[in-house]
Amino acid sequence: MRNILIIGAGKSASYLIKYFLDKSTAENLHITVGDINIENAQKLVGNHPNASAIFLDVFNEENRKGAVEKAAIVISMLPARFHIEVAKDCVHFGKNMVTASYISKEMQALDEAVKEKGLVFMNEIGVDPGIDHMSAMEVIDRIRDNDGKMILFESFTGGLVAPESDTNLWNYKFTWNPRNVVLAGQGGAAKFIQEGTYKYIPYNRLFRRTEFLNVEGYGKFEAYANRDSLKYRSVYGLDDILTLYRGTIRRVGFSRAWQMFVILGMTDDSYTIENSAEMSYRDFVNSFLPYSPTDSVELKMRHNLKIDQDDTLWEKLLELDLFNPNKKVELANATPAQILQKILMDSWSLAPEDKDMIVMYHKFGYEKDGEKHQIESKMVILGEDQTYTAMAKTVGLPVAIAALKILNGEITTPGVQLPITKEVYTPILKELKEYGIAFHEEEVPYFGYDPANM
Amino acid sequence: MRNILIIGAGKSASYLIKYFLDKSTAENLHITVGDINIENAQKLVGNHPNASAIFLDVFNEENRKGAVEKAAIVISMLPARFHIEVAKDCVHFGKNMVTASYISKEMQALDEAVKEKGLVFMNEIGVDPGIDHMSAMEVIDRIRDNDGKMILFESFTGGLVAPESDTNLWNYKFTWNPRNVVLAGQGGAAKFIQEGTYKYIPYNRLFRRTEFLNVEGYGKFEAYANRDSLKYRSVYGLDDILTLYRGTIRRVGFSRAWQMFVILGMTDDSYTIENSAEMSYRDFVNSFLPYSPTDSVELKMRHNLKIDQDDTLWEKLLELDLFNPNKKVELANATPAQILQKILMDSWSLAPEDKDMIVMYHKFGYEKDGEKHQIESKMVILGEDQTYTAMAKTVGLPVAIAALKILNGEITTPGVQLPITKEVYTPILKELKEYGIAFHEEEVPYFGYDPANM
Repeated sequence: MRNILIIGAGKSASYLIKYFLDKSTAENLHITVGDINIENAQKLVGNHPNASAIFLDVFNEENRKGAVEKAAIVISMLPARFHIEVAKDCVHFGKNMVTASYISKEMQALDEAVKEKGLVFMNEIGVDPGIDHMSAMEVIDRIRDNDGKMILFESFTGGLVAPESDTNLWNYKFTWNPRNVVLAGQGGAAKFIQEGTYKYIPYNRLFRRTEFLNVEGYGKFEAYANRDSLKYRSVYGLDDILTLYRGTIRRVGFSRAWQMFVILGMTDDSYTIENSAEMSYRDFVNSFLPYSPTDSVELKMRHNLKIDQDDTLWEKLLELDLFNPNKKVELANATPAQILQKILMDSWSLAPEDKDMIVMYHKFGYEKDGEKHQIESKMVILGEDQTYTAMAKTVGLPVAIAALKILNGEITTPGVQLPITKEVYTPILKELKEYGIAFHEEEVPYFGYDPANM
Repeated sequence: MRNILIIGAGKSASYLIKYFLDKSTAENLHITVGDINIENAQKLVGNHPNASAIFLDVFNEENRKGAVEKAAIVISMLPARFHIEVAKDCVHFGKNMVTASYISKEMQALDEAVKEKGLVFMNEIGVDPGIDHMSAMEVIDRIRDNDGKMILFESFTGGLVAPESDTNLWNYKFTWNPRNVVLAGQGGAAKFIQEGTYKYIPYNRLFRRTEFLNVEGYGKFEAYANRDSLKYRSVYGLDDILTLYRGTIRRVGFSRAWQMFVILGMTDDSYTIENSAEMSYRDFVNSFLPYSPTDSVELKMRHNLKIDQDDTLWEKLLELDLFNPNKKVELANATPAQILQKILMDSWSLAPEDKDMIVMYHKFGYEKDGEKHQIESKMVILGEDQTYTAMAKTVGLPVAIAALKILNGEITTPGVQLPITKEVYTPILKELKEYGIAFHEEEVPYFGYDPANM
């Protein structure tokens, strides 16, 4: 039996493990799931005869090396910063490796050693990064193979709540790491290109410069710009493209409301609030508003943010119970961002029966024979329940498929890689379709970058 | 003759040097002015018999040590980060030292060695920090000596252009380091206390939460909060004060207009703009606005910032020639902040005949015998010309007076210090009055923190 080692039995491991269990007999696989919390691992493997759960502490060298040595291939589902020691062990023992994370500098530095040993280290093969790379490159390569010249590429992804579970005024719930949502867009201006001109959006304007997107059957969405839309410009071979923009999808109205937190300074993670444990939600809000001996926190908020009495923004704030003088923050030495996260988790955590949704949207503009064309490509995936989520499915399945194809010698190009070559994306996208992960693609009139949507 | 070594013959050295030259014969002084540009030093000492200009490179150890060794006292007017090697030499050779800069960690670390040698290292004795410390502590100590209890302290300083030279719509010119003006307020939320409650203002709101100030004979000013108003809370002995706020003074309307640059992201110093050298002022503005195939940069700007046609904000932008398609930035790999600084320097540099102005404003609230009282204390200093500026006067004179008093054994408490004790501020404030640096103080009805001004 060929032993597949999966490290990390977290949120995104459900589909990944199920994929292998279902194929274990036919493919002659034994699945070992290692986690620092062995119960997490146990829950996902159940009592399947071809699987085992083990205690695995990646910071324990002996423990980690022992597990890697016994594997035929290693999949790390840990947070990105924990991959590197596993990766070094994989080089040492000559094992292939798969992760869904962005290639770190440390990981990239292993490229030469990985190639020398003829190993495949496949990264960025979840949903975003992952399915976005593969689905975009599939269309871009096709356009180029047909002598088209790429002039526009816009790409958007969002992890959202499914329409049937969309029950709050923000049309949003936390389906992934809440902290990343609170900190989204911080750390520098967003950078992209529109019609040949570099554009920059500071954090304080990011959520006010959104673009609208329509997805048939799912209605209207909006997207705000990612920090660095130019990151994959060279990787995708788009060095002379005129418009390049990547964004994050939300339901319409979310960003305008989120802007209130940005403007007040509630998303700041750079300092801690005095006496945060003792303060009420109302005190927290008040600390971002001027003192008044008479005016209420509510009025100061309305005045400061210029919120009209009949503006839906106000209902969104009330829904979060933001002005409650009795609910305590109960987090000591907390940053504004940590406190805001806690307040939002009261309202935006998934209920047991809630389902999530992944939306991806690409726009490709190209020129051929002197004419401009546009292709739009959209994907919507719904979760089944809180274990088999759309997020776990779209992250876990590409990882699993890639790992098995590497194990079976169908993907062989050695090195530290991401899935942008035909060898990789063609068979994986094909198999993903069998699991319902597919894009709806259509030719539309060339629209270009549409400022009316901004 | 006692040799006073002044390192750095920059903008703030004129009055400092003049003070010593005028007293050199009576006080038996020789003044040595060292600068990496000896001509700067030469210009300020002229051919005075009791003074000499020398070449001094603080990074040249031999050169630096040689000069320090020959001095009776050392005054460093260099930028703060260059003091430390001079300070170490002063410890080594047993010389007293004076600077107008904030006490750095490295400087503070010398405290024990300085005390061991019985030396006085007086810092933060310019205008802000400096005159602000002394003038505030003089009133605070007086209130306490009369059994008053401090409940409010607000302190504001501004380096501005004199009314007679106030010729632009921003009512502002660069009288000091332009870079500091462009970057003001960045690096974290402003923090202060109002009526016992901690308050935080993020950068994107800093210039919209100003407080108004009236100075008789000079009209109305406004102030925005400094980064950390609580910095001197313990140093001043105000640990249980209810309101503590420090701010920077501008003419009314400046901050609201400056907010446009903040909102657009033009003050960002964290990344460089592509092709910055080639771009026009108009291109620079356009890079912060969405692309449009039809709309002008002007209209996009108005729309994005919601500027009405008859709003004075617009005239302020036009005055800066911000939409000029022919003026080039001509700075390679420049950050937005660097480009903005260049554009502003076109309009806001002092003309040869222009004069500057320093404004300082303190509010002290205290309780005595169950009643609340308030003292307001204000200072306005006008420059004489572009050499003998208000800034040079208010920075240089306290430094000079302190240095001579240390040399003459009138200020003796050893250690790395700032001027907050009676021993220091009483004689210095007294002598400053002879030079016209004086505060107008009055008892007013207790007003407390006034939210109507926010």
